[in-house]
Order: sequence, then structure tokens, then C-alpha cells
Amino acid sequence: MISAGIIVEYNPFHNGHLYHLQQTRKKTNADVVIAVMSGQFLQRGEPALVSKWARTNMALKAGVDLVIELPYTFCTQKAEKFAEGAVYLLTSLQADFICFGSESGNIDTFTNTINFISNHESDYNRFIRQFMNEGVSYPKAASLAFQQLAPSRDLLDLSKPNNILGYHYVKALQEIGSKTVPMTIERIHAGYHDQQLSSVKISSATSIRKTLAENRTLDHIQSHIPDTTYQELSAFYKKYNTFAFWENFWPFLKYRFSHSEPNELKDIYEVEEGMEYRLIRFAQEATSFKDFMEKIKTKRYTWTRLQRACVHILTNTKKEKMRNKFPEYIRVLGFNQLGRQYLKEKKERISLPIISNLSQAERKAVQLDIKISQTYSFAFGNNGQKIIEEEKKQFPIIVE
Amino acid sequence: MISAGIIVEYNPFHNGHLYHLQQTRKKTNADVVIAVMSGQFLQRGEPALVSKWARTNMALKAGVDLVIELPYTFCTQKAEKFAEGAVYLLTSLQADFICFGSESGNIDTFTNTINFISNHESDYNRFIRQFMNEGVSYPKAASLAFQQLAPSRDLLDLSKPNNILGYHYVKALQEIGSKTVPMTIERIHAGYHDQQLSSVKISSATSIRKTLAENRTLDHIQSHIPDTTYQELSAFYKKYNTFAFWENFWPFLKYRFSHSEPNELKDIYEVEEGMEYRLIRFAQEATSFKDFMEKIKTKRYTWTRLQRACVHILTNTKKEKMRNKFPEYIRVLGFNQLGRQYLKEKKERISLPIISNLSQAERKAVQLDIKISQTYSFAFGNNGQKIIEEEKKQFPIIVE
Repeated sequence: MISAGIIVEYNPFHNGHLYHLQQTRKKTNADVVIAVMSGQFLQRGEPALVSKWARTNMALKAGVDLVIELPYTFCTQKAEKFAEGAVYLLTSLQADFICFGSESGNIDTFTNTINFISNHESDYNRFIRQFMNEGVSYPKAASLAFQQLAPSRDLLDLSKPNNILGYHYVKALQEIGSKTVPMTIERIHAGYHDQQLSSVKISSATSIRKTLAENRTLDHIQSHIPDTTYQELSAFYKKYNTFAFWENFWPFLKYRFSHSEPNELKDIYEVEEGMEYRLIRFAQEATSFKDFMEKIKTKRYTWTRLQRACVHILTNTKKEKMRNKFPEYIRVLGFNQLGRQYLKEKKERISLPIISNLSQAERKAVQLDIKISQTYSFAFGNNGQKIIEEEKKQFPIIVE
Repeated sequence: MISAGIIVEYNPFHNGHLYHLQQTRKKTNADVVIAVMSGQFLQRGEPALVSKWARTNMALKAGVDLVIELPYTFCTQKAEKFAEGAVYLLTSLQADFICFGSESGNIDTFTNTINFISNHESDYNRFIRQFMNEGVSYPKAASLAFQQLAPSRDLLDLSKPNNILGYHYVKALQEIGSKTVPMTIERIHAGYHDQQLSSVKISSATSIRKTLAENRTLDHIQSHIPDTTYQELSAFYKKYNTFAFWENFWPFLKYRFSHSEPNELKDIYEVEEGMEYRLIRFAQEATSFKDFMEKIKTKRYTWTRLQRACVHILTNTKKEKMRNKFPEYIRVLGFNQLGRQYLKEKKERISLPIISNLSQAERKAVQLDIKISQTYSFAFGNNGQKIIEEEKKQFPIIVE
């Protein structure tokens, strides 16, 4: 069986994701598509709108064959680490291809850019330091350093978010000596960060979430998502009475800041350089999560960097818990017959333990992800208990 | 000026408290009545229904002349420590008398009992250990040990809660060599723990709170409280939309247990002997604070002991913060002209710093109480901000 890996968040699964899925099959001729999907919190430091189980359903019903969880240790990370975790899982799973969407759409520009930066590494790092000393964030400095080095060459535009992720996917493949072959598909119709729903039927997940946050009804987004997503979102809303937004967690984050001593926060992952004093001070004054973020924002840290720190504070995740270089297990969230067959066929060659139901030993292996689900459950008030039950009892979702 | 000290919680101020206040004046012939009143959380490990500022208003309007805060370090403590803190404050304030309500109503039984126990200390302690080894809580063991020693003498009934408190008041006065003279008034008409509103107009605060918790309206308790309390409770409810019950804090306490490692809880005051594992485990399953309490209850710990531990966990108060032997400041919550005059007159002879508004230095002195108010504010949702503003900006309440 030919297999293609994709790296996704599906927050929520929309028509653009469907296009990516279809193009992946077409381009790689894959029999099986494996999605490595973020858990309850996402790369940009946000809660997923709906639980990983609901998003697994969306993925399977839209045609993904096998859904694997990208553990918390990797899914709520900067692009580099996120990419390393995801690529490592797909390599372990013996995926023949990785196919990702990008603004560029040309795989050669990725390898060229990696080679170019590698050949100019010391200049590149010097420029990064220089820009950071001027007070800008790391990602911004990296993008400026790259422009400085390669103003007119036919290389990647590293100011584009999906180019950045793709760059790290390809780089990580090289670094771990993976035999998985990278491919890319040009993203169409919607910029990643577009705030407004576009009139065509492919919109960014960001604009879809924004519409949901404002309207809390699915009517306005229905034409931008597959029916299967619409049904899944409706069912989720019916069961939980809300989607999970940062604002749902704000009382708990604020409470956490209100009772914590600075030294209790300094060991939290991504809390650095006395940031804890600033966070505690502004949490007192802030009236909402958005207000809080606007208050704590500086040039030095990106919004997403600060949001991720807030996720780690909310979940009380210490630096020591985030030291794994690579994932240590493959947690199966769901599959169809083909996905199941694929796992069976490759089992012998997969060295990581495959976790598909939670026996006591397996529960221990994924205990951080279970704990994260406990925190995630607080978005849902009294219905949160259902999130915990779902997480503890769940076997993989099976779609025929 | 003759002054009488009383030790109160006023949760809320009711007709029984008014009787106590009137009898105190009558019995001591005092010009000035000074109330040392618990802050936002109370001796039995519960949040006060309404803030200390609202309760100060109730006290002043009912005729108390001067209201002093019993700091968190003493007000959320077992009877002995609670008594020591309160008595020390009243002694510092040069109170001529302390007048407390008790089931006994006879001050000689208190001194007799203290002398008797002192004379039989080693037997008393041996019995206590023996009963505790049989698995009962400390207060229960102390009461049984006392019965064992003095079955037929004319001594205190130390199974009664106000006798126990009174015992510790008188004992603390002796221990610090106070010149303040203890007096007691027999409590009338309502047992301390009575659950139902009695048909007469004096009911226990417990029954009043129970009625409020069930009905959330003031109609049923109106005849059991002075008009001034009724007005204050109405105004508070109008401003904050709720009273503070443990259940209001339950989501936050549960959240705290959900993300905390056991070793992060073991330094909390009154968390002892591996209790943290038990609490974390049952918090996951519990559906309400009451349900949680029923799950964690054992013979070894009283309900109030466990409730106090929960308050300290909620407020994240470590053992090291609770080591003060005696209060280190006198925080004035409110006074009338007489109370103000009294403070002015005695100022020279009061050695503790008197904190009557929050300059920077004073804010530092009472920082734990300010932090406690921040936690208390979480009972009130978006209105919590008003609790914090009240706490930070408040000068003593002045009633003419």
C-alpha cells in the first residue's frame, strides 16, 4: 500500500482541507492517507474548537484513513518542534510521502532554501541575533535575516506561515534521515490568516473560527465546510452547549495567576526571563483573555508565543515535561478499514508502541495527554465531565 | 472609656448577634464595643456570604463602634489558633473586657475547666492520643478525653462549639498574660448548628445561610435579622448578583486539583500525611463541592478541618505563611465617632501598627489579606473586580 502522511489541526475541517486531502491522493497516488493531528490545544496556543475525538470524526468522514494524535509535547510548540514531532511520527509510521500545503507550492524551493540557509548558517544566525537585539521576535528576526541574505534569489518567502511550517517539515525529514518523501500543494483561495469569510467556498480556518466566535451559530459557515463537518460541529454543540474558545478558559487562567507566586510559574514551559511577573500583574487588570493578550504583548514575543505560554500555564506544564526530542508513542485516534489494515500490515516495522486503547500501561504512557484533556474539559462547565469520559474510555473511532 | 471586645464572624449579622451586642454593653457597662471580625473566609473553612466590608457595615449599623479584621492567618484556623489571634488583638487594643456567647453562660466553669485540664495534662494528652489512635478526629478525641477525666464534675461541656471557643479565649488570655477580663453570656434560643429556622426570631447563622443557599432570596430570613442586615444583604446582592457559597468556588477548586501535581499541594497549610493524593483523586469524580466533601470525609478529619484545607488550597496558602504566632497589625475595617475617638485616645499604648488606609507600606503588611480577597472575588464572576477594588481602595468605613 502506498501511504501519504499529512499534518493537520482541522480546527475545524473545511473545504480547503478537503482540497488538500484530494490533491494529496492525486499527487501521491496513495492508497492510505494518514493524518497526524494536534490534540486538544494547537500550535498557535489556542484550544481546539471541538475535541480531538470530534475532529477525528470529521477527518475520517471526509476520507482520511488513519488519524494519529500529535501529543501535547509537540502540538503546542513553535513551528520547528511541531514539525519535528509530526514528521517523526509519520516516518515511524512508514509513510511514503508527506504532502503539505504551502504558499509556494514548489517543493524545490524548500530544499533549495534549506541548503542555502545551511550554507550561510553563521551569517544567518548573526543577522537573527542582530534583529533580535533590536527587539523583534525570533520568527520575525529569522524572516528578516533570510531577506537580508537572499534578497533576489528564487527561494521561499519565509514570511508566509505555511512556507515556514513546510520548511521545517522538509528540514526535519533531512535531519532524522527519513525515507519519507516531501511534496507540497499550493494553497488556493484563502490566505492563512484571512479574517473575513471569502465569497468563494474555501476560507481559512481562522476566518471560520472568527465567524463562529461572533455568531455562535453554524449558519454562516455552512457553505465553507463539508456536510460531515457541519454535522459533527452540530452534534458537538448539542452535546456540550459551547465550542472551546480561549475566553471560556479566561476565568481559570485569571484564577491561576491570582493565586500563584511568581516562582511557581517560572518552571512552566515557555515562561522565561521574568515574564511571570508581567503576566501576574496584567492578569489582575484584564477583563477578558483578549484584553489580557493586548496588555502583555510586546515586540519581543509573538502573540502565538505568548498564547502558548498561557496554554502551558493553564495546563501547568513544566519545562521538564517538554524535553522529549521525539514522540514516544503512536496514539491512534481513529481509522477506517483501510487504515486498520495498514497498521496491521506495517506493525512489525513500526518501532514506537502503538496505543489504541487505554490499558493501565498505555494510560501511563499518554498520561500527559489525559491531563491536558482534563484541563480542556473546563471550557465546558458541567459538561466537561463528558470530555474526560470520552478521553479515558475512548478506543479509536472506527468508520466503516 | 470602658471598652468591651467581642469576637465575631457576622455571617450574616442576625438577631442573636444583636442580643449578644446588647448584653455585652449591659454586662460590662462599656462605652465602646470593639469587634474583631473574620475576613473573607471563616473559621469553619467557608467563604463569608458577603464581603468583610459589607459585614463591617452590618456591624456598625447595628451598634458596634469599632471593627478590626482578624487576618486570614488566624480567622481560617482551628479554634485554638483562631482564639489566640483574636484575643491578642483585643489585648493589644487595650480592651477592658472580652465578652463571648457560650452554651455554658458561666465564666467560672471556663477557668475551672482550664485549671482542671492543666492539672491533669498528661492524662488528658494520653487519652487524646488513645482516642486518636482509634481513628477519631482531634476535637472529638479532646472532648472524649475530657469526659473520661471529668465525668461528673461541674465543668464545661466541651462537646459544644461555643464552649470550646470560649475555653480557648480564656486560655489564650491567661497564656499571654492579658489584663483583659473575660465574661460570657449564655446563648439563647438557637443551637449553633441548628439547620432549620426556628419560629422564634433568633436563629443560628447556619440555619440562615442554609435558607439563603436554598432560596437565594431574603424573604424567608427577614424576621431573623435586623433591618440593617436586610438592607446590607439586599444591596450586596444587587451589586454582586450572588452571595458567596462554596459551590461558587467549586469550578476553581476542581480546576486547581485537576492541574496540580501532588507535590505542589503538600506544602499547603493543613494538607498533611498524603491527603493531597486523596483530594486530587476525588476531585476528578466529584460533581459539586458537597459531593466532593462527602467523598473525602473520613473519621480522622472533621468536616471543618477538611474545608479549611480546601480554603488554603483554593487560596494557595503555604505552611510558611501561617507561622505567625500572633497578628502583626491591626487593620481597621470601620468605626463610628466613638470608635475613632477610642483609637485616638489609646494610640500611644497600642504597640501593633494600626492600618487604616492602604499606603504602599501598609499594603505590603496586609498583602496576604489582599491576595485572599482576590481569591474571594472569584465567587462573583465578572463582578469580582468590584471586590478587588473595594479591598484595595477601601479606607475604614465610617458611620456617624
